[in-house]
Formats: sequence, structure tokens, C-alpha cells
Amino acid sequence: MKLSELGESAFLEQLQARFPQSDRVPVGIGDDAAAVSVPAGEHILLTVDALVEGTHFTRKTVPPRFLGRKAVAASASDIAAMGGDSLSALLSLIVKADLEVETLWQIIEGAAERAAELGMTLVGGNVSASEGPLVVSVTVVGTTIKTRCLRRDGARPGDGIYVSGRIGASACGLELLRKGAVLSSAGGLVVPESLRDGPIGLAEPCIRAHIDPRPRLALGRQLNERRLATACIDISDGLSVDLTRLCRASKVGARIDERALPIDPGVLAWERAWAHDATAVALSGGEDYELLFAARRETEVEALRDESDVLVTKIGELYEADGPRGCIELSRRDGTVHPLAAAGWDHFRRD
Amino acid sequence: MKLSELGESAFLEQLQARFPQSDRVPVGIGDDAAAVSVPAGEHILLTVDALVEGTHFTRKTVPPRFLGRKAVAASASDIAAMGGDSLSALLSLIVKADLEVETLWQIIEGAAERAAELGMTLVGGNVSASEGPLVVSVTVVGTTIKTRCLRRDGARPGDGIYVSGRIGASACGLELLRKGAVLSSAGGLVVPESLRDGPIGLAEPCIRAHIDPRPRLALGRQLNERRLATACIDISDGLSVDLTRLCRASKVGARIDERALPIDPGVLAWERAWAHDATAVALSGGEDYELLFAARRETEVEALRDESDVLVTKIGELYEADGPRGCIELSRRDGTVHPLAAAGWDHFRRD
Repeated sequence: MKLSELGESAFLEQLQARFPQSDRVPVGIGDDAAAVSVPAGEHILLTVDALVEGTHFTRKTVPPRFLGRKAVAASASDIAAMGGDSLSALLSLIVKADLEVETLWQIIEGAAERAAELGMTLVGGNVSASEGPLVVSVTVVGTTIKTRCLRRDGARPGDGIYVSGRIGASACGLELLRKGAVLSSAGGLVVPESLRDGPIGLAEPCIRAHIDPRPRLALGRQLNERRLATACIDISDGLSVDLTRLCRASKVGARIDERALPIDPGVLAWERAWAHDATAVALSGGEDYELLFAARRETEVEALRDESDVLVTKIGELYEADGPRGCIELSRRDGTVHPLAAAGWDHFRRD
Repeated sequence: MKLSELGESAFLEQLQARFPQSDRVPVGIGDDAAAVSVPAGEHILLTVDALVEGTHFTRKTVPPRFLGRKAVAASASDIAAMGGDSLSALLSLIVKADLEVETLWQIIEGAAERAAELGMTLVGGNVSASEGPLVVSVTVVGTTIKTRCLRRDGARPGDGIYVSGRIGASACGLELLRKGAVLSSAGGLVVPESLRDGPIGLAEPCIRAHIDPRPRLALGRQLNERRLATACIDISDGLSVDLTRLCRASKVGARIDERALPIDPGVLAWERAWAHDATAVALSGGEDYELLFAARRETEVEALRDESDVLVTKIGELYEADGPRGCIELSRRDGTVHPLAAAGWDHFRRD
């Protein structure tokens, strides 16, 4: 059935039946606004992010349930980058009136399940009709830790620069999806003839990294609680772009060591098969949703890494800024040092 | 200059220069998330609403600055309907890459100025590119009063049903805009030949009601603080639709008195000129952003009305629900009583 046949009132009734009021949330889905209790004395953290069809995804690359999951994860990643606890999510959908109601429900259920996995409640939202592309937008509310959060502007020359997880996987996964790889709803990977000679075993983790990213909430929280990070940002638009942002905010320069970059093995294998530069993909690919942070107390960062199940890698150091706009450099495998352009995702630029 | 020529990084730098960090907000625009302090002991209220080009507005009906203002006001109206205080706003824009940067700024400045007028700070947001229609989406965070808020589900049989302000003006204003009336940026009204025989003096307030609605925050807050309203909702989708929602949530029926309806004088005059039924427009027009509430203590509601500068009118009473879905009726001028269909804005229905 299409949404235009069901009608808004009937849809809202289904929604309320699916999400009845609970004790955890004073007022949830179904009133003019949701009411949420906040831990005493903490500030709230607020962020909103949108996935737009044709810009961030296509029906081919991200199935509806994962759209809901990814939109929630992407916004939660901003809370991770602030070192906060995630609390509540609002889901705002812009859909065509002839959308199948079943598809709408898959997006909503995906968002609700991912919110729950990340310790949040989906407390409300909005659905509007449009003749244009599908938009899945999520507002996430988080809370600070003892009113503290991790900002972008606290890094100092001499700090090490660290990244969590492995980078480049999401961009590689997107390329695999564009080339026709499909992750079936049952979970199995189907690849077209043209990809069968490649390192198939390394494809699925890259595709999963793209369609179902894992925001680093626990790591961000620990970095904040232990006062380890002097500055932090999540890598959503590409490491080089986001590092440039952190450096400009902190008024420092950075030098990254190519040999230290924790490039995902799938990226190394597939990008080699495609004769691409794996380092370039890792630095500018975007959508990794890993944390990039500056820290001075190296042994404490190593201790945190050893305690947690998340890889944390030192990839370079921060320097006095060489001019007002900061400067980031890449020290390559061959020993040469090059200025690193802030290449990556620009929402508007058309090159 | 177009956004695609400026680029995202340059735009974000302009944004940070325009909205520097302030003492009021621990972390504002320019980091991964905003940090906002919340009054001790209160719950937060959360709501999101979107204005979609082609669905809720066209370039012809709402100029960019008023788009920003209206999107903020529409979301703030949900906080008014909860009887809360408005605190912070996030602005999420979906725009074409070839949008003029000047237009984008008009939307943002409109949102920021309306937020400030309503006691809020614009603390963050998001801009994404799309090939589709412009979307202006606003998340508003409010706070409860002593952890209390006004819900939809507390009304009881015997309560009076009240509405603030005058109704139907927004729908009439929209019709005037569609017929070619233009409110110039200098504020003057320009009407086409075809409208010049109508009651011109009553046109501008209707157009203003449509493009620059006034959410009833002070009234909602008083209704909550004085524990006057047993249930409350804002009229965004039309009085008959929103009354039906309140009645279903509260499991009551309602009878509305046509003679009591505070129909805007512009509606009476223009709709008569167009040979439309002014009552039907007032009941189903939508976007009035007035408060519709149930209350029992009539003299106290009258006292509140007399103290405030907002008209408050008793338009009917609530009854035992006649069946599980509630029922609303209209007592007409001629003394007959008719069931009132929940006609109004349905985002998806195509009739």
C-alpha cells in the first residue's frame, strides 16, 4: 500500500500503536513534542544530520532499514566526537506520497533499533511529503560528562594525533555497491561477474562499514571522562577535511605519517585491484565515522586502547601553525613530505 | 554567487564568523554538536518540523527570510502547545548546489532572528545538497515548567474547548498569495488587478499570518503554570483535524458552536467575496498556529485572557465519547447539528 492510500491520520495511528508511551520517557511519540528527562547538572548536546537520496545514497546502495540505521548512527557519531552520552533521537522524513508504507516502516524500524542499540530512545519526529528525493534526517540529543565535552579547538602543538578503527572502508564499500555488489536482506553478499576476480572475502566488511557505520560512543566518552583528548572530531567528510577543520579550530598544523595510517585491509586489496591509491582513498574517502583526536599523554591513550576493543592509532603530530589557516602535511613512505590538500566530501562544490 | 562556487568549507567559515561563540551557550555553531545548559530539574521538550518546497510553500508564496522565520515559529508552536519554554533551535537545510548564497543567508538570518525573538538561540544545524526541492527543517528544544507539560490526552467530558487568536487567516493569506498578492521586502502590499475589488485592507494581516505566524508561547506557558488546560494542541493542520486528534487522545467527543468561532475578519470578507464558506475555511484551513485547549475553570481562563493580549474564545464543550474513536460535531447557526469531518491538511492523501 502507498502512503497516499493510507493517509496521514491512519499512519500516525499505526505509529502510536507501534511506539506506546513508556516509563523511560515522560512523553514520547504522539504529542506535539516529546519530553525527555536529563541527568541532573549536565548540559545537553544537540546535533542534526541528513541523508539525501541522490547525494548521500541511492536506493541501490543503501536499503531502507539501513537508511534508518545509518542516519541515526551518523548523528550519534557527532555525540561521540563531543565525548557525550547519547540520550534521544528524533527522526524527520521527507518522502514521496506514493512511497510504499512498508518501505517507510523499514526506515522507521531501522532508526528505532539503531537508536536502542546506541542507548537512545526514538522519541519523536516528523513525516512530510515531497515530490523530490527521499530525505532521512536525525536529530540526536546527548548529554555531557560532568558538563564537559570534547571540542575541536583545544589541541596544542606537540600533541599526538590519533584515529580510531580502520579508515577508507566506507568509501571502498560504496565503490563496491556502485559496481553492483548487493548485500541481500538475509545478509549474504552477491557480487556481479566484474568483481569476481577481486578479493571477495574483504568486500563485505567494507560494504557493512558503508551502510551500517559504528559511531565510537564508548571511546569518545572515555576520552572525555579521562580528559585524554585535547580536541576531537569525527571523520564524516574524509580524514584530510576533518583534520583540517580540527587544525584550523585549534590554530595548529599537523604532519601525518603515511606508514602509520590504519588503512582497512579491504581498501588495500580492492583499491590495488582497481589500481587506485589506497592512501588517497583512506585520507579523502569520508563516512568512516571514526574519531580523530589530539592527545598528549601517549601511555594513557595506549592504556585506553588496550582496555577497549577499538583500535586506536597514532598517525602523526601537531605543530605550531605555519600561518593563520594552519597547514597539514603528509610524510610519505619514500620519506618525502607534501602539503596535504583538504580533499574529501564537499556538499556543494562541483569540480 | 552560487553555493557550488563558494564551496562548503568557505560557507562554514562564514557561518562561524557570523555566529561566534557566546557566553549563553557553552558550545554553539561550529563544532560536532552544540552544548546547551538546561534549567535544573526540568525535562527537555523536543520537536522537529519541516517546510518543503512545493508542499508547504513555493518561492512565490514565502520569501527566503520568512521561510527561516516560519520554520522556527512552526516548531516553536509545538513547544507552546506543550506549555513549555523555548530554549534552542537547530536549522537543517536541504538545498540545491546552485542556490544563491545570498538566499541561503536570508533563510539563516530569518531563522536566527525569529529564534531570538522567541527567546531561543540558534545553536547549530546542517546544510546538505540535493537535486530536489528546498527543505527548511527546524528542531526546537524547550523545557518543561516544574517538569509539567500540556499533553493531548488529559481532557475530560464537561471541559470547555477554547481556541486562541483568530482562525482561518493563514489559509486566506495563502489563497491571496496564490492569486498573485505580493508582500514586498519593504513591507508594502502589491495586489494584482483581479484582487483590487476585494476588501484590500484586510488582506495584509492574512498574508502576514501565513508567512510569519506567531506561536503562542506565553499563553501555553501560563496555561501550564496555572494548571488551567487539561489538554492542549496547536492548530497546524486545521482546527477540525487537530480537535479530532485531541479528542481521540483524550477519548472524548466535542461539540463546536459555529457562532462562537473567532473567524478572522479578513477571512469573512475575502471568502465571502470568493463565495466560499468562511466557516469551512476556518475549520480546515490549517497553519494558524493557534492553541486549541480544553479547560474546566472558565472564570480563570477568562481572567488569563483579560490579563494577556491574546484573544481566547470558548468554542464548544467536550462530551463522553460516542464510541472508541470519539466524535466531533458542529452546531450550526441555524440550530442544526452535524458531524464534523476531520478535514484539513493531510500530508499524503491525494483526493
